[in-house]
Amino acid sequence: MTSTSPTGTRTGTETLDIQDQVGRSLSEFLDQRAATLLSVSPSLEAVARALAEFILAGGKRIRPAFCYWGWRGAGGEPYAPAAIGAAAALEMLHACALIHDDIMDASDTRRGRPSMHCRFTDWHRNAQLRGRPVDFGNAAAILLGDFCLAWCDDVLDECGLPAAVLRAAKSLFHLMQTELIAGQYLDMLGQAAGAVSVDQARSVIRYKTAKYTIERPMHLGGITAGADDALLAAYSAFALPLGEAFQLRDDVLGAFGDPGETGKPAGDDFREGKRTVLVSLALRNAGRRQQTALEALLGDRDLSPAGVDVVRSIIASTGALRTVERMIDDLSAAALDALVLAPLAEGARQALAELAHTATNRRT
Amino acid sequence: MTSTSPTGTRTGTETLDIQDQVGRSLSEFLDQRAATLLSVSPSLEAVARALAEFILAGGKRIRPAFCYWGWRGAGGEPYAPAAIGAAAALEMLHACALIHDDIMDASDTRRGRPSMHCRFTDWHRNAQLRGRPVDFGNAAAILLGDFCLAWCDDVLDECGLPAAVLRAAKSLFHLMQTELIAGQYLDMLGQAAGAVSVDQARSVIRYKTAKYTIERPMHLGGITAGADDALLAAYSAFALPLGEAFQLRDDVLGAFGDPGETGKPAGDDFREGKRTVLVSLALRNAGRRQQTALEALLGDRDLSPAGVDVVRSIIASTGALRTVERMIDDLSAAALDALVLAPLAEGARQALAELAHTATNRRT
Repeated sequence: MTSTSPTGTRTGTETLDIQDQVGRSLSEFLDQRAATLLSVSPSLEAVARALAEFILAGGKRIRPAFCYWGWRGAGGEPYAPAAIGAAAALEMLHACALIHDDIMDASDTRRGRPSMHCRFTDWHRNAQLRGRPVDFGNAAAILLGDFCLAWCDDVLDECGLPAAVLRAAKSLFHLMQTELIAGQYLDMLGQAAGAVSVDQARSVIRYKTAKYTIERPMHLGGITAGADDALLAAYSAFALPLGEAFQLRDDVLGAFGDPGETGKPAGDDFREGKRTVLVSLALRNAGRRQQTALEALLGDRDLSPAGVDVVRSIIASTGALRTVERMIDDLSAAALDALVLAPLAEGARQALAELAHTATNRRT
Repeated sequence: MTSTSPTGTRTGTETLDIQDQVGRSLSEFLDQRAATLLSVSPSLEAVARALAEFILAGGKRIRPAFCYWGWRGAGGEPYAPAAIGAAAALEMLHACALIHDDIMDASDTRRGRPSMHCRFTDWHRNAQLRGRPVDFGNAAAILLGDFCLAWCDDVLDECGLPAAVLRAAKSLFHLMQTELIAGQYLDMLGQAAGAVSVDQARSVIRYKTAKYTIERPMHLGGITAGADDALLAAYSAFALPLGEAFQLRDDVLGAFGDPGETGKPAGDDFREGKRTVLVSLALRNAGRRQQTALEALLGDRDLSPAGVDVVRSIIASTGALRTVERMIDDLSAAALDALVLAPLAEGARQALAELAHTATNRRT
C-alpha cells in the first residue's frame, strides 16, 4: 500500500489513510445532519446536498493531517477515532471560513467550481424567484457557513474524548476560532486601508494562516493526546515558520500559479487587491512609475489578462518574487531545524517533515 | 424591591434580576474576549467595542428569561450561576442571528440604532478607505456575527456544569442552532418564492420563533437542571403555542407598530416583502384588485409612507388583522392551559404566566 503515498513512505500512507477517514467521518456526520434538516423541511434538501458536496469534494485536508500528527507526536495511538474526530472538526470549521471568505472577497470559484454564494445565486436565477439573485446567493451562503460554524463544535463534542480532555481541547479550539475570525478581519481591513507594510502583512499571515493552518491544528491534536507545555512549544517552533512559508507559497501561486492546477482564475488575488507580502515588497522596492502602475492595477475588479501580466512583471522585476522564494526557503529550513529538536513520538518527525515539504513545494 | 418588577410580583423581580445578571455575565465574558482580540492586534478594538455595545445594549432578553424559568421549573436553585451561564449562551447565539439577519434583510436599524453592517459601512465611508463602504460593512458584520456564533458555545462550555449535564445541554443547544439557521433559510426562501401559504408561514414561525425563542430555551434550562422527558414535553405544550403567538404579535407590531416604540421604521416588513401569516391571510382573503395591489407593494424597497398605509388598510379590511389577533388570543389561552397542567416546581408557573403575558401583549 505504500505505493499510494505521495512520498512512498509508511508515514505518508498513514497521512493519506487519515485524510480518507476524516472524509468518511465528515460524511457520516453530514448524513445525520441532513436527516435533521429534512425533518424540519424537505426544502432543505438543496442545503444539505450543497454542504455535503462542498465539504466532501475536498480540498487538501492539510489541517486534519497536522492535527493528526500533533496527536501522534504526543504519543496518541495510530488511527484513533478521537484524533480523527478532532481533525474532522477542523475541516468543518474550515468550510465556514471558505464559504464566508468567498462572499467577502466576491470570489466566483473555489476549488475550480462555483463558490457557495454563486451556486445559490445561479439557483435563484434559474428558478426565477423574487429579488436579486446575488442577494439570495449571499444570504444563503451566510447561513450555510453558519451551519458549518455551529456544527464544528458539535463534531468535536461528539468525538468521544473523556470529559477533562474534551474541556482542554474545546478551550483551544475556541481560541483558534477567535484567532481565525480576527485574522480574516485584519486581512480585510488591510485591503481596505491599502497601505500595508511588510510587517503588517506578515502579522496577518501569522493569525490567518500560520496559527490557523498549522500551529493550532497541531496543538489540538497534541492536547487531545495529553501533550505537555514543552511539547506544545516545540510544535509552535516548527509550525509558525512553516505556516508563514505555506502562506507565502500561497501568495506566489495566487500571483503566478497555473489556473488549471490552482482552480483559481489567474490574477484573482490582484483583482481583489490582496496586500500580500509579495505585493507589499514589490510596492516597497518599486520605482515611482512602477508604484503608480501597481496601485492603479491592484484592486481593479476588471483587470485584463494583459494587466495581470504587467503586475506580474513588476513583482518579478522589483526582486519581490526572488525575495519571497528565499523567505520560503529560510522559513522552511527554520521549521525543519525546530523539528529535529522536538521531543516527538516515533514516526511523527518524518510525517511532519513530509507534510512540511508538501506544504511549501505544492503547485495547487 | 418588588416595585421594580413590571408586574410587581416576587417572580417578576427574580426575572428582572436574572436578566441583569445575564447582562453582567456577558459583560465579563466580552471583556475577556476583548483582551484576546487586543492581544492579536490593537486594530480589533473597534470590533470588541461594537460587539459589546450591541450585545449589552440590550434587547428584551426574553430567551434568557424562559431558559431560567425552565431551570427553576425543573427544580434548579434560584440564581444559580450555571443557569445564568446557559441563559447568556442563548443571548450570544441570538446576537449572531440578529447581526446576520440584518445583513440578509438589508435592515438599516436594530433596536433603534444602526445595524451592525451599517455601523461598519459608515465607519469605512468616514475613514475614506478603499472599496465600496457597503461591501466592507457587510463583510465586517459577517465576521462579527461569526464571533458571536463561535463564542456562544464557549459561554456554555464555561458555565460550570458537570460533564454529563454539559454533554446533554450541548446536544440540545446544537440542535437548537441547526433549527434556528434552518428556520432563517426557510424564511428567506419563502420571501424569494413569493407565494407562501398560511401553513408554510406557520411552519417558518414554528422553527424560527416558537422553538427558538421559547421551547428550546426552556428545554435548555430544564435539561441543565435534570428535567425528565415528561417535563420537557410539558414545556413544549406551553412553549409552542406561546411562541407562535409571540411571532404573530411581532408581525402585527411590524405592520402596525409605533416606530418610536419598536425601534424599526414603519413598514419595513412590507419593504422586505416578509410573507408573514398576517400578509398570507390578507392575500388569501383579498379580492382580485386588492391582491394585485398587495403583490405590487410588498417587497418594494422604496415603498412610501402612503404605500405603507395602503398595505395596512388592505390587511385590516380583509379581516386578516382581526383573525391574527384572535389567533394570538387562542394560542395564548392554549399555552396557559398547558401551563396549568405542567408538573412545575414552585414559583415557575407564575413566572412563566407573567412572561407569556408580556410576550403576547408587548408593544415593542
